[in-house]
Amino acid sequence: MIKISRLLCPLLLLPSLAPAQQVIRHKLPNGSTFPISAAVEVPAGKTLVFLSGMVPPVIDPKSPKDSIAAYGDTKTQTIGALNAIKAQLERLHLGLRDVIKMHAYLAGDPAKGGKMDFEGFMQGYTQFFGTPAQPNLPVRSALQVAALANPGFLVEIEVTAVRP
Amino acid sequence: MIKISRLLCPLLLLPSLAPAQQVIRHKLPNGSTFPISAAVEVPAGKTLVFLSGMVPPVIDPKSPKDSIAAYGDTKTQTIGALNAIKAQLERLHLGLRDVIKMHAYLAGDPAKGGKMDFEGFMQGYTQFFGTPAQPNLPVRSALQVAALANPGFLVEIEVTAVRP
Amino acid sequence: MIKISRLLCPLLLLPSLAPAQQVIRHKLPNGSTFPISAAVEVPAGKTLVFLSGMVPPVIDPKSPKDSIAAYGDTKTQTIGALNAIKAQLERLHLGLRDVIKMHAYLAGDPAKGGKMDFEGFMQGYTQFFGTPAQPNLPVRSALQVAALANPGFLVEIEVTAVRP
Repeated sequence: MIKISRLLCPLLLLPSLAPAQQVIRHKLPNGSTFPISAAVEVPAGKTLVFLSGMVPPVIDPKSPKDSIAAYGDTKTQTIGALNAIKAQLERLHLGLRDVIKMHAYLAGDPAKGGKMDFEGFMQGYTQFFGTPAQPNLPVRSALQVAALANPGFLVEIEVTAVRP
Repeated sequence: MIKISRLLCPLLLLPSLAPAQQVIRHKLPNGSTFPISAAVEVPAGKTLVFLSGMVPPVIDPKSPKDSIAAYGDTKTQTIGALNAIKAQLERLHLGLRDVIKMHAYLAGDPAKGGKMDFEGFMQGYTQFFGTPAQPNLPVRSALQVAALANPGFLVEIEVTAVRP
Repeated sequence: MIKISRLLCPLLLLPSLAPAQQVIRHKLPNGSTFPISAAVEVPAGKTLVFLSGMVPPVIDPKSPKDSIAAYGDTKTQTIGALNAIKAQLERLHLGLRDVIKMHAYLAGDPAKGGKMDFEGFMQGYTQFFGTPAQPNLPVRSALQVAALANPGFLVEIEVTAVRP
């Protein structure tokens, strides 16, 4: 009887002692190499970390604070916003590798006839995601919005991460 | 003493042995029959599956790839995007019944004076959600955005699902 | 041996008996007092409650149902939408204190030259979030969209909450 109880308890406890399941990133179908995931699966037992939408820093303090010149073009703003996200994640002991979901909100660029500069956004994005050093790809939606909080902003990026 | 330990262990383990809680879909108040949920409650212990925003397929290969004609009107694009989501979910052994949240991003339709064709979107949506065969309703936000990644796109749909 | 089994079982069970971890709201860096969180961390074991985007109620039944006059200005609509969210949360035995994430979708206001009235939105928002009575701050993204489902809507707000 004693033996049984000693065996039984650890056995029943196995599920909670098993190593935590991992996040699964499902590739896009048909061999697409576009650098986002088709789907990301977050198993039970994971801590979700939601971040506020982040905007780029001022790069030219001499330009008016509500001008695009103060923050740069879409590529520059994308790099700036992603570096701000990277820094925020690092304050939480996380990294861009832990990002599972992204919303990219782009404003129309007067220098592009009022259309969003999607190519410029991708040039910034691919410096951070889908590189040899950081291959983890989030799911993503990218939209042109009517405007962001500051007329100088061309880019706002919102991410969700999972604590590993 | 032995008896106590044998009784105690299974008893303490009960919570983790209990059947998993279910997703709860709360109806809209005041008897509204609009086919979305007011709220969806996802209990601990569930796997969340986030999908990238999905766009419609080309239906007319002879039209330019950046024209609305290539992808069809809002109703056609909604059906196309939802079928693409259905196929993606099926690759993950999930279905539209498992969708708990939706963002519908609609672009202005030149054929509707530049306004989004919300009615056309609903005509597509209701073929997949709130039917006798698939009564599960997600929470939803539907917005007119300034533009999507391709000028031919009138519809992009992003969903989150829960593994049952 | 008996003693060991009695000690071992409760010990191994400790993780599942420990009090549930709490939601952590991380402040904005650099001492910013802007009333949103930089990040919100939701530990495993929490129930997530996703709400549909909510719109303001009619405040002037004599105005056409598709006019801004029927729903009021951005500040009024923000207060109306947040009260609707509060009521929906209360039906689920939750409160605004449980909101962890917000998307604010604002439409351009003709009275503001077609720009969103971000200041009006903030005047409404700060009556509900960051007050002495309700200090809990969500992460947030606020965007100007091209349009909402009804031309009279200037505000749609979507929140996610966590059951405490």
